[in-house]
Amino acid sequence: MCLFCKVANGEIPAYKLYEDEAFVVILDRFPSALGHSLIIPKKHCDDIYSMGPGDSEKLFPLVVKIAGALKNKLKPEGLNILQNNGEAAGQSVGHFHVHLIPRFKGDSVSIKWGQQVPTESEFEGFVKGFNI
Amino acid sequence: MCLFCKVANGEIPAYKLYEDEAFVVILDRFPSALGHSLIIPKKHCDDIYSMGPGDSEKLFPLVVKIAGALKNKLKPEGLNILQNNGEAAGQSVGHFHVHLIPRFKGDSVSIKWGQQVPTESEFEGFVKGFNI
Repeated sequence: MCLFCKVANGEIPAYKLYEDEAFVVILDRFPSALGHSLIIPKKHCDDIYSMGPGDSEKLFPLVVKIAGALKNKLKPEGLNILQNNGEAAGQSVGHFHVHLIPRFKGDSVSIKWGQQVPTESEFEGFVKGFNI
Repeated sequence: MCLFCKVANGEIPAYKLYEDEAFVVILDRFPSALGHSLIIPKKHCDDIYSMGPGDSEKLFPLVVKIAGALKNKLKPEGLNILQNNGEAAGQSVGHFHVHLIPRFKGDSVSIKWGQQVPTESEFEGFVKGFNI
């Protein structure tokens, strides 16, 4: 059984902020700052690709709710919602989870990328070959 | 009217991957890599705190759908889902949006923070004073 399945079923203790039938919300043990929280579905799924429709509908209303509560509590200057899939994206536990990262000017969090400038034909080609 | 309201109503052209009654999905003009996409609600809201319940329920099922389509198209090694609130968190357009950032080993994307180690009593105090 994976780490977050054990957190969800109470086998591993955690600082819980919220719990319902589908999700548990805990404080990250090694946070960017106190208040950095994780939303974890109780039903195991590896990543976003394997998330079922029920959990995916309920997820964002809960993110909104926890975001508001963190704002009231911490009065942060910003908030990042981050969900990583795959080791190359920084996923460190193989059980889907969402980070809520309260931000303060001058904090230790850094999120950046080098902006590319694709050509019009590269953009057009991508859109043309994109299937949902 | 804000930039993304104009994108949503077609006043500003964009490379659209998907559209329904509530959301538009476009390619980021200055992406980390071609395929970096944005999900934008058509109805204006500044940030996560002002997102209405209807949009918040529909949002994550759409994120899951676009994530799967990007995976099929690009076969990335990872995928970050990122949503920034406030300038201090890197929000550059004041209209709620979600980034889908395909990841490849050695790419230019960097997401990191210095891990803090709060004490047990700091964790306990936070949980105790947390109201939803």
